[in-house]
This record gives sequence, C-alpha cells and structure tokens, in this order.
Amino acid sequence: MIIDKLTELRQMMQERNIDAYIVTTSDPHQSEYLADYYKTREFITGFSGSYGTFVITENKAGLWTDSRYFIQAERQLEYSTIELYKMGVKGQISYEEFLKNEVNEFGKIGFNGECFSISEYKSLSEKMGNRMLISDLSYVEDMWKNRPSLPDSKIWIYDQKYTGESLESKLKRLRKIMKERDYDYTFIAAPEDICYLLNIRGDDVSYNPIVLSYMLISQNRAYLCIDQSKLDDDIKEYFAENNIKIQSYNYIYDLLRDIKGQSRIYLDPKRTNVNIYESINSNVRIITGTNLVTQMKAIKNKIELSNEKKAYLTDCKTLIKFFRWVETGVITGNLTESLASKKLLDLRKQNKNFIEESFETIAAYKENAAIVHYSPTRSISKTLKNSGLFLVDSGAHYLEGTTDITRTIVLGELTDKEKEDYTIVLKSLIMLSKAIFKEGTNGQRLDAFCKYQMWQNKRDYFHGTGHGIGFSLTVHEGPQSISQNSNVIFRENMTSSIEPGIYVENSHGIRLENEVYVKEIEENEFGKFLGFETLTFLPIDTRAIKKDMLNDDEIEWLNNYNTKCREELSPLLEGGDLQYLEMMTKEI
Amino acid sequence: MIIDKLTELRQMMQERNIDAYIVTTSDPHQSEYLADYYKTREFITGFSGSYGTFVITENKAGLWTDSRYFIQAERQLEYSTIELYKMGVKGQISYEEFLKNEVNEFGKIGFNGECFSISEYKSLSEKMGNRMLISDLSYVEDMWKNRPSLPDSKIWIYDQKYTGESLESKLKRLRKIMKERDYDYTFIAAPEDICYLLNIRGDDVSYNPIVLSYMLISQNRAYLCIDQSKLDDDIKEYFAENNIKIQSYNYIYDLLRDIKGQSRIYLDPKRTNVNIYESINSNVRIITGTNLVTQMKAIKNKIELSNEKKAYLTDCKTLIKFFRWVETGVITGNLTESLASKKLLDLRKQNKNFIEESFETIAAYKENAAIVHYSPTRSISKTLKNSGLFLVDSGAHYLEGTTDITRTIVLGELTDKEKEDYTIVLKSLIMLSKAIFKEGTNGQRLDAFCKYQMWQNKRDYFHGTGHGIGFSLTVHEGPQSISQNSNVIFRENMTSSIEPGIYVENSHGIRLENEVYVKEIEENEFGKFLGFETLTFLPIDTRAIKKDMLNDDEIEWLNNYNTKCREELSPLLEGGDLQYLEMMTKEI
Repeated sequence: MIIDKLTELRQMMQERNIDAYIVTTSDPHQSEYLADYYKTREFITGFSGSYGTFVITENKAGLWTDSRYFIQAERQLEYSTIELYKMGVKGQISYEEFLKNEVNEFGKIGFNGECFSISEYKSLSEKMGNRMLISDLSYVEDMWKNRPSLPDSKIWIYDQKYTGESLESKLKRLRKIMKERDYDYTFIAAPEDICYLLNIRGDDVSYNPIVLSYMLISQNRAYLCIDQSKLDDDIKEYFAENNIKIQSYNYIYDLLRDIKGQSRIYLDPKRTNVNIYESINSNVRIITGTNLVTQMKAIKNKIELSNEKKAYLTDCKTLIKFFRWVETGVITGNLTESLASKKLLDLRKQNKNFIEESFETIAAYKENAAIVHYSPTRSISKTLKNSGLFLVDSGAHYLEGTTDITRTIVLGELTDKEKEDYTIVLKSLIMLSKAIFKEGTNGQRLDAFCKYQMWQNKRDYFHGTGHGIGFSLTVHEGPQSISQNSNVIFRENMTSSIEPGIYVENSHGIRLENEVYVKEIEENEFGKFLGFETLTFLPIDTRAIKKDMLNDDEIEWLNNYNTKCREELSPLLEGGDLQYLEMMTKEI
Repeated sequence: MIIDKLTELRQMMQERNIDAYIVTTSDPHQSEYLADYYKTREFITGFSGSYGTFVITENKAGLWTDSRYFIQAERQLEYSTIELYKMGVKGQISYEEFLKNEVNEFGKIGFNGECFSISEYKSLSEKMGNRMLISDLSYVEDMWKNRPSLPDSKIWIYDQKYTGESLESKLKRLRKIMKERDYDYTFIAAPEDICYLLNIRGDDVSYNPIVLSYMLISQNRAYLCIDQSKLDDDIKEYFAENNIKIQSYNYIYDLLRDIKGQSRIYLDPKRTNVNIYESINSNVRIITGTNLVTQMKAIKNKIELSNEKKAYLTDCKTLIKFFRWVETGVITGNLTESLASKKLLDLRKQNKNFIEESFETIAAYKENAAIVHYSPTRSISKTLKNSGLFLVDSGAHYLEGTTDITRTIVLGELTDKEKEDYTIVLKSLIMLSKAIFKEGTNGQRLDAFCKYQMWQNKRDYFHGTGHGIGFSLTVHEGPQSISQNSNVIFRENMTSSIEPGIYVENSHGIRLENEVYVKEIEENEFGKFLGFETLTFLPIDTRAIKKDMLNDDEIEWLNNYNTKCREELSPLLEGGDLQYLEMMTKEI
C-alpha cells in the first residue's frame, strides 16, 4: 500500500529532522528512460508515468506531472493520499512553491543527489533561499525491498559499417576539440554519448540500447567506469586495443577526486549529478556546456544517413503491412488498440536487424488520440470500428538506425471537422518539410514555419514540432529541437522529426510525423541555403483530405511524396500489401 | 583638412599619454538622429553617414561603418588617411579588436563618456581587459571651432485630441508601475520617451520633432531638466499645472548625485550615458532595463491608431500625386532622383498638419536602389528614364502621426529578373501581412514568416524586416522589432513596418513597405490569436508582377489590398490623380 510506504518514509525523515523530501524521475545519468532499478518515484507513489516529481512533508504529499499524464496520474494516485499538481495549468503551484510554502525559512529539504542534475540543483537552491538542501539521503532506495537488480546486459560492438566512423577517429576528433579549447578533461555521464563515442550498444534500459556508465577523458587517458560483468572477452580486447581503461562503475568518484587543482574539466550540467559534481575538488576549474560528444553525435555522417534511410524503408514496409492488417481487422469488430500495438511489434520482429521498439507505441483510436502520449497497454484498450481516425506513433531501433513515425489513418466515415483538422496538420507538415532556410537558422524560426498554417486556421498544438533522433540510441536527441524556445542552430546533416498535430478533447487527435535531415540546397550571392531531405517513406492517407483547402503547390508536394513512397516501397512488398500501397499512394 | 585635424587630435592625446581615442556617433541621449551640435564624428572624419565609429592611435586611424555606407565612406575618406573597416564583412576586424591589437595591455583608451551608453561601455570594458578606459576626454568637442550651437527650438504642447491621453494619466500609469516594482526613481534620457510622457514636441533634431532633455521621476516629484529658453509662458504654465518641476539641462547631474543611498532607481542602460551613470552614488541600487515609458509608448491607444490611419491617408494621397508626377516627368528626360525628392517634400508641405519629413527620402533609380540607404542629395543624382524600377522610401510627421512607406514603381520596360525579384518581395510582404500568430509570439518568429518566401526563392535581404514606428517622434521605435534576433513579444496595438526587399548590386533594388498594427483575431480553445491590420493605403504596382508566381490566395490578398486603397483614397483625389489611382489599383 502506498500509504504505508509514505508512513515509513515520514519516519525516516523525522529521525533526521528532514522537513521535506523530494523524489525525482531520474537515474544517476539523468536519462530520459529509466532502468527499473531507478524507478523510485514510481515505487513510492504508484504512478507509472515517465515524468513526475514527488514531494513529501510531515502532513502533505504531492506529485507534479504534465498534461500527458493528468488522467493516468489521477487514477493511479486515487487511494494514495498524494495530491496531484498539474504542471502548466493556471493556478497550480510548482513543487518549488510548494516547498517554500510548507518548509520554514531555515528548514531542511532532502533528496538523493544522484538523481538531481547540477542545473536542477542550482535552480532549486536559488529558489529555496536559506532552507538547507541535503543531497545524500537515499530514503526511498533504502526502504525498497525486492528492488529490481541493476541492469547487467552484455555490451556488443557496433560495427563500423553501421556507425561509419571508428572509435579511434571519434576519440581523436573529441581530443582535438578539447585541445583547441584547452580542456584537460571531459567528463561524460550521458550513456548515449558514451555508446556513440565507443561504438558500443547494450540493453540497460527499455527502448534504449544503451549502457549505463561514466567516462573521463584526457589527451592521454580514457576511462570507462562500468559494471565489468557486462564485458565479455571480445569487448575487453576491443577496449584494450583502443586504449580505453576499464574501471568499476563507482570508481568514477575516485577518478574525479584525484584530478589536480587548476586543471580544467568540461562537463554538462544537465547531465551530471550533484554527487558526481561534489566529488570534484573545489580548486579544479569546471567549464560547463552541452557535452562535446552530444554536439558531435548530432551531426550524422554519410554512412549513418544512408543506413538510416534503410531503417526507414524496412520500418515503413512493416507499417504498410500493419495498416493493411488494421484496415482488414476492423471489419471483424474484435480489433483493439492493444492488439494492434502487439501486432505491430510482431511484424517489426520479423525484420532481421530489429533490435527493439524505440518507445512505447501510441495506438490511439478516435478521442483517445487527443491524449497526446496515450498508450493502450496502460489504459483501457478501445475497440476499433469502421469510422473515425486511428493515430499510430511508433518506432524501432534497427542495426541501421532508429525510426519514429506517426500516421493517422482513416478507418471509415469522418466528420467534416476531422477532415478539416487533418488537412491543416498536413499543410503544416508540408510547409516545414519544403522550407528552405539560410545557414544559421535556429529551431524556433523553423518552428514558426510549421505553425504558420496552424495559426492561419486558428489551431495549435502544445508539444514541440520536432526533436533530433538518435542512431540506435535514444529516440529524442539534442541539442537541436524545433520548438518555441530553441535557439540551437540547425546544421547540415542534423536530423529532426517534423510532427505537427491537432487534438480536440473527447473527439479526435491527429498527428503526422516524418524524419528529415538538413542538407545544402544552394549557395549563391545571398548566402548558403539549406533544406530538408525526408527519410520517412510512408504514404500520407489522402482519404482524410479536404482537397479544396490545399493549394497547387501543396497538392504537388503531396503527390510527389506519395509517389516517392510507392517507388521506394513497391520492391519490398507483394500481393495484398502491394495493392494496399498502391491504393494509399494514388494521386489526388 | 581632415589630416590637420587628426594631427591636432594626436597632439592632445600625446599630452596625456592617451594611446587611442574613440569618437562614436552619439549624443548624451543616445539618439538615433543627431543635432548638428553633436556631429563630432562627422567633424573629425569628414564622413557624413548616420552611423560609424572612429578610432585613432598614434599611427593609425580607422572608421567602422555598415554596408549602407561602404560606397559613401570610401569616397568621403579618400584623402583623410583614415582606413575604412567594413562591418559585417568577413575578415574585417571590429574596432574592439583593432584596439586590442594597437593598444598594449596596460595602455590608455579615451573617449567622451557622454557619447557612450552604459551598455556599450560595459561591453567595451569587458573586451579591453587591463587597458584603462578614460571617459572624461572631450578632445574633438574642444578642438571644434565654429561648432554649431546647441538646438534651442521652442517646445509646443501636443493636443490630447492627437495623443489620446493626458500627461496626468500617463504619469499616473508610470507611477503605478514604479510602485508595483518598488522603484523610488526612474531616470529618462531618451527625448522621445520624455516627449511622449509629457505630450510635448519640439524641433531639436532634423527629422525628429523631439526635445533634448532629461527627467527624474519619483512618486511625488517629476523633474524636467532642459534649456529653459525653449519654454514659453504657456508651456511653463502647463508644466506647473501638472506639477512638473523645471530645472536647467545639466542640473540632472545634481539631482542624481543627491539621491540617497539604498534608494532604488530604474534606468535604461542603452539610453543612459556613462557620465550620467557615474554621477549616481555607488550605494544607490540601480535596476536596469528598457525604459518603462518606452514600453508604455509602444502600445498605441485607440486615438493614436485612428489618427495614424488619417496620417497615412493624407500621405498616401500625396504619394499618388507624386508618383503620377514622376511617371509624367520621366517622359521629359529631365527628371532626376534629386528633383523627385524635392517635389515629394513640396507636395507633403501642402498638407495642413505636416510637421516635417520623418527621415531623409530615399529616391533611388535602377542600380542606385541596390544601395540600401541611398540618398540622391548626397550623391550623384541619376536621371530617371522610361525603363526599370524606381524605389522611393519616405515618410512624414503629421499632427496625426508618422508615416514610413516604401514603394518600388515601374518606369518602363523591366528585365525578367526584376519582375521575378519584385514578385518575391511582394510574396514576402503578403505572407507576413496576413499572418495570424499566437499571443506571445516574438519578433524573430514573425521575421521567419517574411523570410519563408524569400528563402524558398533563394533570395535574402540583410536589413530588419520591421521596426516599431513612433507617433510624431522617431520613425524607428522599440522595443519591438521584426528581425533575426528579436525576442520581444508582439502585443496588441503595437505598430510595425513590414519591409522586405531584394538588392542586386549594379542592377536593381526592390523594397515594399507598409505599416501595420497588431490586433486580436480570435480567442478559442487553442488560445488567443493575433494578426495585423494594415495602416498604409498605397497601391502596390502590379505592372512588375509575374502573375504565374502568385498563388490564388496571394492574388486575392493583392486585389483586396489595392481595392481597399482605391476605396480609401478616391474621395481625396480628382482628375488625373484619380485616374492614376484607378489605373494603379486595377485587379490582376
């Protein structure tokens, strides 16, 4: 029972006079997805959403999460005595405000420093004034009996025919940047950056073929701190050949403690936890910014991009089979969202280089699609019927790369409003997909291009327009993003999703998502012009379109796009699937 | 001779061991346009452009200016020994880099602190390291014999029927903001802010009906520091009635020096000079940001907006007469750019509430229009012929408000390229003019809307897309701006120009410019949507359009716009002018 856990937690707090205790959704690497071992917030609250912060005091307990999870959290917290605070909703206080209200000016606030990034800690510290922050309290970890074990998946070497660049070459590039900027060390806690740099993969976290580990790199040394049971002899040899020193997972603290004063170390404050930070001597000079490897990784090389295209062809072929199966299955009256999700995974597994899904499939029928991050498996699964729209947002990791695709397809009769909204989403997708932009353009200006058509029609959506996509790592990858506040510049060979949507509560939800990469279009007297090349080859369902809302250019783009999909996918399909492809790609 | 002046200046520098001396283009108020009295940079260099920084050392002298003035500066600096540094051109060093190269690490750099804003000073100071900055050296002012006298224009009261709000009401609003933010004082050096607040105008600066003065305001007191010869009895009575205390111009230093420690004073670091700043005691708490009055002034009231529309009707009527006169005059073969500028001023003067031009008219024929800020009076004046394009960017202050309009008209045969570029500029203007955007949208995202069509056609321009427009004050007014780096949010009833262009060196230049204001379009479940209402009613010349490059929506917008111009202007014109209007507004 959650109530019992809260009582136990409060007793532990009382013993050390802690006035409030915070449990974040994080691991020591500030990963987006967590291994079960680190799901402390879920353990203590019973709320299983991927995002939320829990705060408890003597008399109160609250959970803060965002609009994706309001419904789920309400249900899961029902008997817990934990109050739900809805983030982004007017009149709802933040957890920092809650702490200021509930903890007196010289009170004590505790948490586990491993699960707080330096950035979060600094921001909290500024807001808390004289209240004392105590970062070495692992209460929830301590009380968790039957805690899942630490992930211990084996590491495998990611072949250069997929990565396009050797470990040696990547490390050389990194050290060159370090030298230019006069950094003696760079510290990396982000598992996806380490996996990219070392050309390794693993399976420590669902949906992410990554390995939990730390690295400390200088001009002469490169330490990898990792649970050594993950390494087989081949891997050990590979690391030895490349002069990567292996140490145990927690040895990173010793390495950092041993850094001499006046040395310059570079680290990412968003991806370095408080305990790590505090282990560095105060006379070491710390320079902060986005991980250097994050920046290297964001620019894909030619082999990664050509592999990525192969991954999309495989995945889009699979999705054609899937959607045909869905449209056929609807007629039986037995097809549910949940069954559809499972079928999609089964179909993907048939592809030989399939690793795993890149995130939990969103298969949302009709009004369920208005819940932006709806997953049928964690909710009541709706039966699909022959009317309305069916939104499927899914993706996979293959050896050739990672996919993330959303299509909203027509299962039968549509309302005028559904068609109108669908067409507006499509217009927005087209507007940005065919955008040409000057070198130096940032993410918020690209976002504006996508919003133009939305806003012309007085519609909007409240999630980002696009995110970078990892190469068999994490499906969301920075530093670039197409969104309202992004000042990160889009450079050649960066990838991004483009995923506008419209969501009408209790009615319908529409999203269309392609992946693109940035390429040069032309350089002339006015400067260098860039544009997008689309990697996703899945037809856009034309049955939901109000053609009179499209102008000639948009119709041309759409027909070209669907024709391209047919050309790319035809050789991979046959029989009924091929017929379905042909039906879906007819010109309008 | 410039060379002699430089010798004299170097002697003064040597006497006090000054290694480098800087002369900016500024007055003590950091105004955009300068009274002749403050044109020290022009006096010492001979370069008459409106923007530039001069730096001199024992052996070198350089002038930094931007692309608007490259040609003019080259000509004017020819025999001066002053080297031209082109800002924004690759490989050219900035004046700060020049100083770092030329002045050794503990050297002395001098300037007149009155002509440096705090922001500029801080930025320079950070870059100069250990070099000493000496801010009380007025060498150029001291050596300037026959210096023009300080402006002494009479002040006049600006009737509330134009301003829409009394001094009393504005001051009350200002004090309310100060109270909310706990400011004991606000200091204002920006003449246009003072004129707005006090509902006064003057004639201290060409093209700006403003008054050079300072204000210091608290909850109980409001001091105006001004040359008292500018005040007649009516004005004195008006100020007395409104409890505005008059002091001499330089008394502001005493007022600031007298502010007690721990008081909180708010000021604008971009509009406060170093000497002013240094007169404030170090224990006074200074809070900095955009002048509060700048922010009030940017949101126009209903009466200002309806007056502004009247000003545009008057001015557009005048421009119709002017363009007809130009098209007729071209046939004679005697019409020059310079004559056209003069004629335009003559025509404007015939309007009863005309105050003055709001900036120097740009009347640029053919390739001259590719020089963005070309003025025929300061250059060789080209004769207009019956081919090519003629760009006229001009404006006026009327009692009803300020105009700023650019049209590019067809004088005869055009090249295909001219037509194509004209159509692209038009498409860009339309794209932004009809944009709808969510509440909270900033200037750089609006700029992206205008650039979309430019970039689609691999064209670009290197000036801002839009600026706020003062109400019979300064034609460029902030804080809002539609440009690449602007994060200022566009709010209801803010005004802006929209002025895309394309410039092809030695060939042609095209710009179209309307003024708009922000208005609410709709509020619905997706939020509040804003859009623009156009205030400019001057037909867009359709003879330069390649119709096949416009889509149906664009053609509709254009025909609606020109029809609206005809409807608004017909009642104000007759005879040949009316016929010309009708010809210019025919549907395409």
